[in-house]
Amino acid sequence: MQLYFAPLACSLATRIAFYEADAKAEYIQVDTKRKVLTKDNADFNAVNPLGQVPVLRLDDGSTLTENTAVLQYVAECFPQTRLMPAGGPAQARVRQWLGFIGTELHKAVYVPLLDSKASDAVKAYSRDKIKLRLDFLQSQLAGRQYLADHFTIADAYLTTILNWSRATSIDLSPWPAVADYYARMLKRPSIAKAVSEEYELYMKEK
Amino acid sequence: MQLYFAPLACSLATRIAFYEADAKAEYIQVDTKRKVLTKDNADFNAVNPLGQVPVLRLDDGSTLTENTAVLQYVAECFPQTRLMPAGGPAQARVRQWLGFIGTELHKAVYVPLLDSKASDAVKAYSRDKIKLRLDFLQSQLAGRQYLADHFTIADAYLTTILNWSRATSIDLSPWPAVADYYARMLKRPSIAKAVSEEYELYMKEK
Repeated sequence: MQLYFAPLACSLATRIAFYEADAKAEYIQVDTKRKVLTKDNADFNAVNPLGQVPVLRLDDGSTLTENTAVLQYVAECFPQTRLMPAGGPAQARVRQWLGFIGTELHKAVYVPLLDSKASDAVKAYSRDKIKLRLDFLQSQLAGRQYLADHFTIADAYLTTILNWSRATSIDLSPWPAVADYYARMLKRPSIAKAVSEEYELYMKEK
Repeated sequence: MQLYFAPLACSLATRIAFYEADAKAEYIQVDTKRKVLTKDNADFNAVNPLGQVPVLRLDDGSTLTENTAVLQYVAECFPQTRLMPAGGPAQARVRQWLGFIGTELHKAVYVPLLDSKASDAVKAYSRDKIKLRLDFLQSQLAGRQYLADHFTIADAYLTTILNWSRATSIDLSPWPAVADYYARMLKRPSIAKAVSEEYELYMKEK
């Protein structure tokens, strides 16, 4: 499989999933500002008309987009990793976390705060949403190691999003269970490796 | 199962899924502005601390939230309905649609436009996102009956969101495949029944 990614963008979660599975994948870097592939300036909109990463190219040549769909697909390719429970309420709860992270954190809070074209009024509107959502996350993570009872793709996704907190000036310290969780996840080998590799690419791009 | 819903909110998609399955469910109306149950003013935040619908109460008494998780759970309870392909790339593509609808349409465009507390600057920021997303939807729906090769939960969800277009002054006519799709979906018996029932409750609430 091929993963179209941008350094430290939400596609990082899929890289983490591949590393957890100890699986081979080809990583194709995208400049999402200019909407081109980094290596040859080829048009990225031809790969995804929405201009977003991640895009996963499956072995049949077709493409799959949307982080929650890509993560579930990768997890299901490697069931031995237990990155996604196989069915029933346990699976539904990981999907609930994917939904929460994707809609309430990623899109409602972090995307506008990261967007250089968003005005102060837009950023303030997003900032007003932080407390309810991080209070909820705090209540759910208190006393827990992971979102589910073991590491799943929801943890890969949540860590990827929390990793934007510094860039968006979101101070996690009022939510100690969230801050501790994030610090703990950064030490996990798959995540440490993925973050340090993409950080290097990110700095090179800048 | 019990579905906590608000009239014409995104929980409508789950009602449609139940109607497609010809399945019994208990529908509990929520006033999401006051965060109470309509019937007895009981505190809805005790059911969902985020104050959002849908909430599905499973037969074991636990609750499930997040539209994409709830819809997949219901679809998988009734596999004979084919509301969700059972696995592989076909399932992944429906999840891709759920992700797109949930993040790009529901959260990025429609929620701020529906929010009476969002300023004109916030609404303008969301309105700027419409064209790219509806252009994409137009390109994908042209010549197609459904998002996948038959009716799925992604259609239930998309119809529910498009149903907010009038309230948000989004004119679909520049995207005729989208407008035609929406008009066609409204005629589908499960959707016609769900929309007319919730419309009545919506008007009563007002």
